[in-house]
Amino acid sequence: MPNLSCDMRAYVRASPSCGTLGGVTRSTNEAIVLCEGAGYDVILVETIGVGQSEFAVADMVDMFCLLIPPAGGDELQGIKKGIVEVSDVVVVTKCDGDLLPAARRIQSEYISALKFMRPRSRVWKPQVTRVSSLEKTGVPELWDLTQEFRQLRLESGELLATRRKQLRLWLASHVKDHIMGRFQKHPRVYALLPSMEQMVMDGLITPGLAADYLLEVFEGGRGDKRNDQV
Amino acid sequence: MPNLSCDMRAYVRASPSCGTLGGVTRSTNEAIVLCEGAGYDVILVETIGVGQSEFAVADMVDMFCLLIPPAGGDELQGIKKGIVEVSDVVVVTKCDGDLLPAARRIQSEYISALKFMRPRSRVWKPQVTRVSSLEKTGVPELWDLTQEFRQLRLESGELLATRRKQLRLWLASHVKDHIMGRFQKHPRVYALLPSMEQMVMDGLITPGLAADYLLEVFEGGRGDKRNDQV
Repeated sequence: MPNLSCDMRAYVRASPSCGTLGGVTRSTNEAIVLCEGAGYDVILVETIGVGQSEFAVADMVDMFCLLIPPAGGDELQGIKKGIVEVSDVVVVTKCDGDLLPAARRIQSEYISALKFMRPRSRVWKPQVTRVSSLEKTGVPELWDLTQEFRQLRLESGELLATRRKQLRLWLASHVKDHIMGRFQKHPRVYALLPSMEQMVMDGLITPGLAADYLLEVFEGGRGDKRNDQV
Repeated sequence: MPNLSCDMRAYVRASPSCGTLGGVTRSTNEAIVLCEGAGYDVILVETIGVGQSEFAVADMVDMFCLLIPPAGGDELQGIKKGIVEVSDVVVVTKCDGDLLPAARRIQSEYISALKFMRPRSRVWKPQVTRVSSLEKTGVPELWDLTQEFRQLRLESGELLATRRKQLRLWLASHVKDHIMGRFQKHPRVYALLPSMEQMVMDGLITPGLAADYLLEVFEGGRGDKRNDQV
């Protein structure tokens, strides 16, 4: 990253999170469009791996890479549910020195794991590769995979079909975020939600009844009137 | 099912779908509560495997069983993404006659696949079992698994913790379904949505702009005024 940010041909920018857990928002989506418009031909989107950010990003990009550092224990356990299934390439990082045997083991574990996953594409089988940024190995191979992926997906028409599908998904996702945001930020809903959740969890009322009450409050019904009486 | 529905101790009922794809709705959730209240000690919820119904049900029940019939080809390919990961028990069905070798193969494939999945519980490792309703084999073993699962989850406190979490999830889900339903059924939004989606997919406007416009229409802004001018 320090090298990349000194390169005059690269534009590196943190994306504001606007309070979203994981930091992937509408602005991330539109920043990609802007960068494309500005003529950048390779756009890398990096997530911090919190919340649902990876899944949000998987619906924004042409190719999704999952980076796995080799560590002790059963690595697959620590991986977010379903994230391997949306990966086009799994990259085992830090593949050098003492970590080389672990990295190799993890690579073969992922190759086995991917055998049991339903592939996202008809022309591409997810690959597992290894890189070392210290020894500068594996990066050209990863780039070749990227090019091959792009070529196959482009020729089959999948790349453009996926982009169209992603755009529609994002329309739905923006609408949902906005409307649900209004609900959560409604002052009376915000004040009531924790106690309603507690009552639901304690079995005092059903989730359905609690939802009805909160919705009435949100839509300016009973809740507000009660407030007036107080 | 024909046998079960003749048993005086069983109550069998189809659940109305209210138009939800997959047919799992708030009423399913509340039907479970009602059956519990009526004193039924075993409640089976069966989905038709369409839409997101299995995932919705996985958040309603204590134990989630995935039923797989043995068939030709690579069975794992046909399974919905992520569904194996939410399964507590995978049941290979029709395990008799000619299908026996296929059923055995599928069982071992799932045992391998589950090795690479992150378990949902700290006390339970997902199991793969075989049944035949023709030869009436495997059902007592499945019932034993169910009892063992319940015992382990109950003793560890996981069962009750999961139930509390599920109730909170259902509150959120009811609210979301209601609010998003209102958006989708709004007459002007309903009329505009297909053409907006098309414009977004054709790259004529960004998903964000289309969302802003639809939200203005929904919240009684620009869209309605335009309608008045026409």
